[in-house]
Amino acid sequence: MVSVILARRASAVHSGPIDDLFAALAHRPEVISFAVGAPDPAVFPRAAVMAPLVETAIGKYGPAVLQYGKTQGWPPMLDQARTLLRQRHIHCSLDKIHISTGASGALHNVAMAMLDPGDVVLVETPTYEPAIKTFRSFGATAVAVDCDALGLLPDALDAALARHRPAFVYALPTFQNPTGRTMPASRRAEVAEVILRRGVVLVEDDVYSDLRYDGAPIPAFWSFAPENTVYITSLSKTFAPAMRIGIVVMPPHLLDSVFAFKQSIDMQTSSFCQAIAAEFLAGPEAGAHLADVVSVYARKLDKLSSALRDHLPPEFRWTRPEGGMFIWVEGPRTFDADATLRRALDAGVAFLPGKTFYTNPEAHGSTFRLSFAGVEEDMIRPGIELLGELCAQ
Amino acid sequence: MVSVILARRASAVHSGPIDDLFAALAHRPEVISFAVGAPDPAVFPRAAVMAPLVETAIGKYGPAVLQYGKTQGWPPMLDQARTLLRQRHIHCSLDKIHISTGASGALHNVAMAMLDPGDVVLVETPTYEPAIKTFRSFGATAVAVDCDALGLLPDALDAALARHRPAFVYALPTFQNPTGRTMPASRRAEVAEVILRRGVVLVEDDVYSDLRYDGAPIPAFWSFAPENTVYITSLSKTFAPAMRIGIVVMPPHLLDSVFAFKQSIDMQTSSFCQAIAAEFLAGPEAGAHLADVVSVYARKLDKLSSALRDHLPPEFRWTRPEGGMFIWVEGPRTFDADATLRRALDAGVAFLPGKTFYTNPEAHGSTFRLSFAGVEEDMIRPGIELLGELCAQ
Repeated sequence: MVSVILARRASAVHSGPIDDLFAALAHRPEVISFAVGAPDPAVFPRAAVMAPLVETAIGKYGPAVLQYGKTQGWPPMLDQARTLLRQRHIHCSLDKIHISTGASGALHNVAMAMLDPGDVVLVETPTYEPAIKTFRSFGATAVAVDCDALGLLPDALDAALARHRPAFVYALPTFQNPTGRTMPASRRAEVAEVILRRGVVLVEDDVYSDLRYDGAPIPAFWSFAPENTVYITSLSKTFAPAMRIGIVVMPPHLLDSVFAFKQSIDMQTSSFCQAIAAEFLAGPEAGAHLADVVSVYARKLDKLSSALRDHLPPEFRWTRPEGGMFIWVEGPRTFDADATLRRALDAGVAFLPGKTFYTNPEAHGSTFRLSFAGVEEDMIRPGIELLGELCAQ
Repeated sequence: MVSVILARRASAVHSGPIDDLFAALAHRPEVISFAVGAPDPAVFPRAAVMAPLVETAIGKYGPAVLQYGKTQGWPPMLDQARTLLRQRHIHCSLDKIHISTGASGALHNVAMAMLDPGDVVLVETPTYEPAIKTFRSFGATAVAVDCDALGLLPDALDAALARHRPAFVYALPTFQNPTGRTMPASRRAEVAEVILRRGVVLVEDDVYSDLRYDGAPIPAFWSFAPENTVYITSLSKTFAPAMRIGIVVMPPHLLDSVFAFKQSIDMQTSSFCQAIAAEFLAGPEAGAHLADVVSVYARKLDKLSSALRDHLPPEFRWTRPEGGMFIWVEGPRTFDADATLRRALDAGVAFLPGKTFYTNPEAHGSTFRLSFAGVEEDMIRPGIELLGELCAQ
């Protein structure tokens, strides 16, 4: 006889309809899936690139590559992270940078260091759903702040900060998951003014900004409020998710606490993966590799845009993003994304109902997210043709 | 202006004297350190072994090795885990096995799924100190249960279970960190009887059992109470810590919750590291590699034992363990391990004061832990000679 009593927080993270959808899709490779937000494995580095990185890393640094390492990160990876951060207008000293176990590892760790039960986290409308789960797993509540096509509305944010006194604000200013929208520099400045005046922390989740297909790069939100921003990025979308490499910049006071929890969470991020990633980023092929990734995804976005133009009924609205992996679609109020998804799966195409990204899902049943990065290029048009027929019904 | 308000739990995990010691040692490579419990990097696989594993894994499975993977684990690694578990008398179906981000990742995840603030976890006296921090980080309290040289005392455990109704019991039955002691099969059976009768879960932390230098292997505690045991092991001590590969076996009801939190903690354990580890374990060299590791550490244990016999004052007591990485020393009541450590560092030798491993540290100031795995073989005797002089003062 055994009685396993789960923690109260377990009720906050049980699997839901998305998990069921992804589980179903795993057994149906014939479905053209715009549902899963994963990168295209065809753009990952080949064995002929990866194996020599291991040789080089162990050759240079010896068995330290395979040993326990510093909580902060593998020093050569920290150096590479600083270079990468500078390109995003994040000029900070090395001691503010930390290499996490992916961006999700960073968010979990920061949430653990900052959230008490009953706390509020202000989020965008809509927002990245797994982040809501992370906050809930520490007993906190995500409260949505109104947004327009440019992201957080400064006045709404100001009012919400006054009303809720949140532990922090969580936002994805660049190529947002799920909407694909980007906060322009002028809006970042306005939001930063509010954040600075209220003396609060904004956690900037920025894992797509290297995937820009149109327009000019925008400095990270961090650069508008360096002392008030926790900046999180990762190499999952531009190198490989399985390396589980995240990069975080944060105020020193918070970093100490994050390190203390990190030791308990997983000791440190794999030195082996960090060493390989650092060699890759330092090597001559990194630039060309990123350009390749960007050109593949840009082509897919073109295909998806033109297919949507041709096949989606006119009452469906969507905006072409300047980068990232997602197009967000808003159907007419009568459109039921859940019901359509059930028919779509039978027809051989999948997407993600948008309501999952809202703190009040019921009101948003007519939206959905299309992820184009992972779909085979030639399947994009046939998939959208199928979907267009279903949306027209 | 920014105000970063840390979670209340942050006060439970701030760094302490051990962290200060390790930080100091990192800058003093000339010190002969018996303090850090890390493996000997000289026994790690070479680049000539590691690089071909990457080629083989990507060659066999393609870019899936670099992609997001299943929460449960990389299927070939799960297969290898099952084989490894069988050698320890853990016969379970694949669906009860999970590949975690190291053993620490497993403990964090299980604690997150099971612990509410105010909960009690029963631990051995003394116990692995970072585990106490992990439990505290979820607001739980570690309560020590009396032990003798064979581990947990069944009657004391029974009484503590009745009194504290803990969320679970945490124990390291084999080559315990810090004491090196091992619970024999007869004691495991007695403890299992109590655990089964009380219907409680025991979390078995077993990361050293492959490092056996004397005596016959003992079946894992799991095999005495399969439904009531969460079994945690890792490849850090026998392959490489930087791979961050842990293996967990647990009741299905708990596994679902652990998976839900895992997605929030770090999505999944690196498929890349899992794929490499699986190829290594499946390959022809794994057996010889483990035999090499065991023979290196066995020789170091011999050197340490004989040096202690020759140089430690007669009033200091210690027991030669049958395996693992640690010898535990109890000095006379007047011996002050903290004060001796300060003089030892000046003299060029380090150890870990034992009181850190107790829930009531004050009462155990005369104990210390010697870790022999990471010390260069030729430095063991000179180090103990120095230490012996300090202990005699």
